[in-house]
Amino acid sequence: MATTYKATWIWYPGDYEIWLGNKMNNRRTDRGAYFPPFWKQDSHYVTVEFSKAVDLTEDEELKIEAEGSYNIKIDGKMLFGMPKKITLAAGKHRINIKVHNQCTPPALYVDGKTVKTDSTWNVTFEDKEWIDESGKASDTSSTVYMPAGFYNFDNIEQRPSQFKLERERHEAVAADGNVYDFGKETFGYAILKGIKGNGTINIYYGESKEEATDKYHCETLDKLEVCNGVVTDLATNQTTELADEYVLGNSKAFRFICVETEGCSLSGVSMDYEFMPEEEKGTFRCNDEELNRIWEIGAYTMQLTTREFFIDGIKRDRWVWSGDATQSYLMNYYLFNDNDMVKRTTWLLAGKAPITSHINTIMDYTFFWFNSVYDYYLYSGDRHFLTQIYPTMKTYMDYVLGRTDEDGMVEGMDGDWVFVDWADKPMDKHGQLAFEQILFRKSLEAIAAVAKLTGNDEEGNAYQEKADELGNKLMQFFWNDDKQALVHNRLNGKQSEDVFRYPNMFAIIFGYLDEKRQQTVKNSVILNEDVLRITTPYMRFYELEALCMLNEQDKVMKEIKDYWGGMLKEGATSFWEKYNPDEHGTEKLAMYGRPYGKSLCHAWGASPIYLLGKYYLGVKPTKPGYEEYTVEPALGGLEWMEGTVPAPFGSIYVKMDSNSVTVKSDGGHGTLILENGKRNIEIPSGKEITIKL
Amino acid sequence: MATTYKATWIWYPGDYEIWLGNKMNNRRTDRGAYFPPFWKQDSHYVTVEFSKAVDLTEDEELKIEAEGSYNIKIDGKMLFGMPKKITLAAGKHRINIKVHNQCTPPALYVDGKTVKTDSTWNVTFEDKEWIDESGKASDTSSTVYMPAGFYNFDNIEQRPSQFKLERERHEAVAADGNVYDFGKETFGYAILKGIKGNGTINIYYGESKEEATDKYHCETLDKLEVCNGVVTDLATNQTTELADEYVLGNSKAFRFICVETEGCSLSGVSMDYEFMPEEEKGTFRCNDEELNRIWEIGAYTMQLTTREFFIDGIKRDRWVWSGDATQSYLMNYYLFNDNDMVKRTTWLLAGKAPITSHINTIMDYTFFWFNSVYDYYLYSGDRHFLTQIYPTMKTYMDYVLGRTDEDGMVEGMDGDWVFVDWADKPMDKHGQLAFEQILFRKSLEAIAAVAKLTGNDEEGNAYQEKADELGNKLMQFFWNDDKQALVHNRLNGKQSEDVFRYPNMFAIIFGYLDEKRQQTVKNSVILNEDVLRITTPYMRFYELEALCMLNEQDKVMKEIKDYWGGMLKEGATSFWEKYNPDEHGTEKLAMYGRPYGKSLCHAWGASPIYLLGKYYLGVKPTKPGYEEYTVEPALGGLEWMEGTVPAPFGSIYVKMDSNSVTVKSDGGHGTLILENGKRNIEIPSGKEITIKL
Repeated sequence: MATTYKATWIWYPGDYEIWLGNKMNNRRTDRGAYFPPFWKQDSHYVTVEFSKAVDLTEDEELKIEAEGSYNIKIDGKMLFGMPKKITLAAGKHRINIKVHNQCTPPALYVDGKTVKTDSTWNVTFEDKEWIDESGKASDTSSTVYMPAGFYNFDNIEQRPSQFKLERERHEAVAADGNVYDFGKETFGYAILKGIKGNGTINIYYGESKEEATDKYHCETLDKLEVCNGVVTDLATNQTTELADEYVLGNSKAFRFICVETEGCSLSGVSMDYEFMPEEEKGTFRCNDEELNRIWEIGAYTMQLTTREFFIDGIKRDRWVWSGDATQSYLMNYYLFNDNDMVKRTTWLLAGKAPITSHINTIMDYTFFWFNSVYDYYLYSGDRHFLTQIYPTMKTYMDYVLGRTDEDGMVEGMDGDWVFVDWADKPMDKHGQLAFEQILFRKSLEAIAAVAKLTGNDEEGNAYQEKADELGNKLMQFFWNDDKQALVHNRLNGKQSEDVFRYPNMFAIIFGYLDEKRQQTVKNSVILNEDVLRITTPYMRFYELEALCMLNEQDKVMKEIKDYWGGMLKEGATSFWEKYNPDEHGTEKLAMYGRPYGKSLCHAWGASPIYLLGKYYLGVKPTKPGYEEYTVEPALGGLEWMEGTVPAPFGSIYVKMDSNSVTVKSDGGHGTLILENGKRNIEIPSGKEITIKL
Repeated sequence: MATTYKATWIWYPGDYEIWLGNKMNNRRTDRGAYFPPFWKQDSHYVTVEFSKAVDLTEDEELKIEAEGSYNIKIDGKMLFGMPKKITLAAGKHRINIKVHNQCTPPALYVDGKTVKTDSTWNVTFEDKEWIDESGKASDTSSTVYMPAGFYNFDNIEQRPSQFKLERERHEAVAADGNVYDFGKETFGYAILKGIKGNGTINIYYGESKEEATDKYHCETLDKLEVCNGVVTDLATNQTTELADEYVLGNSKAFRFICVETEGCSLSGVSMDYEFMPEEEKGTFRCNDEELNRIWEIGAYTMQLTTREFFIDGIKRDRWVWSGDATQSYLMNYYLFNDNDMVKRTTWLLAGKAPITSHINTIMDYTFFWFNSVYDYYLYSGDRHFLTQIYPTMKTYMDYVLGRTDEDGMVEGMDGDWVFVDWADKPMDKHGQLAFEQILFRKSLEAIAAVAKLTGNDEEGNAYQEKADELGNKLMQFFWNDDKQALVHNRLNGKQSEDVFRYPNMFAIIFGYLDEKRQQTVKNSVILNEDVLRITTPYMRFYELEALCMLNEQDKVMKEIKDYWGGMLKEGATSFWEKYNPDEHGTEKLAMYGRPYGKSLCHAWGASPIYLLGKYYLGVKPTKPGYEEYTVEPALGGLEWMEGTVPAPFGSIYVKMDSNSVTVKSDGGHGTLILENGKRNIEIPSGKEITIKL
């Protein structure tokens, strides 16, 4: 469970995450212009009360530190000033500490022998402690308390507002005139060495060499003015005394840097690589070197896009998007298993009420958010988080339910972005989309489950009922016998003729099709080349997952090698936002009507990490937090493979070739499933077993 | 109208007000402990887009300044960096500027020959400008824009976040040992002169000498440590180099300061008086010197409590409370006529959605807020503000309507503070209180009127219908023929036996009683000494207003002299939170179970300012913004009186004795009403007239 047992900095859940998210989301630039998100950005509560009832067997001295002005009330009596040390006498006490901070989230650290700030403290943003004329407090205030939020700031000096990613000096691997090549996609702060003279320096960044050397179209750039020993960043107007090295103030994504000087010179370009230290707990190796390389580039893509949060891409948008993040979470469970990162991103995406639009304005992204919360519970077993997030889930579901039509289905209303995917053919976004209803149903199931897990059975039953009602209509509304598929949408009560892969593959993944229709749809849609091909790794993720669930690992292996291998052949050093094998040369760099608009490092590009861990090594939790799990390995045409999958209790190692399977697990109740479930073998904890095939 | 015609700093309406309000509301201390409000405190939107479409006849250079990071988009194209000057070519342009600021409200100042930031600019906190794969912007984003908020920051240097009240050095008028007397209630920063030695200095503040010299019970105090030339404020841990003078870091309310030193000495105590410069546009003089003194002390009480906002009291609570503020607004219309202060306070009280409790947690205070918005329009004629605030009014009314019972009436639910008044006898707060329903009905009428004024006729009609439904039930539910009065409340469908003045006097003020019942209630309740006497100036305000509306100016004059004169006789130098003529000595200082808990400078103490202006000078608007108004003077037993009442067009001067009335008005369509409406005389604009009686 997520309860912490040492003192740690605490805050109102979501407050720190939203505040840090604002820093993240507002750092994007577009050709030297500040470029913020277009959705509502929220803030922390400026005054938060932290409270805890304690019972001490002996006197205890507490160290106290807060981010903000604060007061301390012990047993209802306020102390003078903002003491950094207090002594509590043995016995029962009620501690109430209010912290106020407009600029950064109110946060608290208390450390005594037994009294320590952790997730067992309560927090509220309004204690409603009014008194009557006699000074008596009200007994009807009905204050709502939440369990405190926290991360890993376990030392008193680690003030949450001071958190920074780490930095490491990296050098260019090659230079071609004024163009510096850092060898692969990277992220950080350009460093200019040995600036001399007075004049201007223009810095053009490129994920490709083409971009860095196209000063009129590259997506990111910097302009400096050097004058009498002072460097001015012309984008921000910030000035710095000239020294041996000048480090740019904002980070950028690039592989290449092109530097143009006028009136001054420099001796070289270096960089401070900026990163979140993430341990790769998940591993994968096999006999196929191309596949190994795909796994490695996928892992590196995840390293680059896993920052303060799971972001979409490092050049663009440098924002947190729910659909993208949901995939990052899933890959994360097979790579870093960084639960805090999932929770932090989930809080940021939710923001704060009132809800004025879907998450990131996208209808589908709201639904992915719901599903991701339940997924998180499945992989982590963290019920504490469910308690914190459930009220927010309800608020979002109220928003969604307030936007349904007479059939109880969601349709894009003004202000709703119905996204689905970047498809290579116009897609009708009007009326009832089968894809959206399927995600909606799954969201209702997710919130129903969370409601029940947090002791809200009645609400849970009501949500489940709505899910079932919607489920009953899905086939009736969208199934088309002629096409043997779910059609794309229904407009004015009439099915359209369009068939896309999206609703059909999600219906498979969520188990909304019976056995027979699963097979039908596999052939009529998923394996049917006449149905529009998917060219984003984003939706290929789900398409290939659906096939894996139908035991088509051999076919999927071929697809992985074709598609991700295809990007490698095009020179990718991280995976892309979109890849159409028919596009080559500079054409493949373009998107959104801009020659270098495409992101060449996009988290959703890394899906082989997930597919290989879950459907080849075959490891997945079947009860929350891997209390129970299965290992159902599939070589998919490989000669051998081995790897580890992280779990809350440690890791699960799997090695397989055509003759045998070896499994070693650090805990949990595991079942090794072989021969399509005909051979099920219990996996012992802490002991390696090898099974002959 | 409120439209500005010069460049001024603009922001999202409410943002600056809420941010500044947080600074105000979080400065209260209680015996050296930080003491914040117990309701939710909100924040500004951290990213705001400002936009304007312009059409220039010639090229124009714009100066641009923002509080925060910003970008500039001209005709859809973003400019590099954060330019402080741009030139627009002649012709049509669309200007979009996004400003991001986490700590202080995003604010913008643009100044060109014709293009200037003012209230005609649009603002939004989410522009929902998503694009499709081709780069095309969505046409269904349905962004909601608001007209910009502004104040009087008309110079580019006047950054809104830097706003400070003014300061003026004041000296003590007397000293008695270590107790310094500043001669009257005041507010500001204590200054210690000539500190020498090493040791501690304790500073005890008192609105009374008793309080300042009672170090164990005074409500506010400071403690300093002086050590080797450094002064440490022990409440905040802030350190300052010792100089000739040491100015305390936080302001306090006091008349007396008692200084206790140990190990060090000082040569004297002075103060920096802190104030909002407010011109007293309203005046009143008469033959009765006691009444003149009451008016002056009332005006001084308003000077002290009119700060960044209209606050309740300067010692306690130093917070903005809606019921208190509503009275400050009304007094303000007859004294300062500072419309910006009314608007700013109204925004702060509203805060931001989601609404998690009544305003200040008090049900009645939500209703006063509604009514104050319409009052503001009546006195100012400012329709621009109605456009900005109407959406917020709707949000609050939704909240209220969501908390009504099966009769459509409001009852105190968990979390609702049903306040009414500090009464000297227990008051049942359960069930349907007549007082609350009357305020609720008036609120529905207020929002109905504002809806219609802002072009939302259909919504307006719906609110009016609800008001009428509630109105129809009032007499049926609460009128008691035996008591000839509205009873206090109704519990489980049954009238209680209690009769209080509150519902009866509000029913008179709002015109909810017919002529006959008005007279009945006047005698059976208002003039009936068996009904519990009111001992707060807060509710005496309305009680006396009701009597004035029934032409009882003679009786009210006697009450004013008895009650407010009574406070003067007790030594008041500003008016108090509560005054019970039966209490004397230190007893009169106590409240909330604390010996000096009572505030001796409370805005709601100043009601004679309003009563004398509106019901003796007799000036009141009858159409919004004094477009039409009446002057119906009443001597109420005085020999003569004269005074001015501010109006949007300037002022209205009235002088009266038993022989004649003189009126001079700067504008509007005025009617002088004499002899109970039997003589109505048109008041010319700009020309003094004298009418013989």
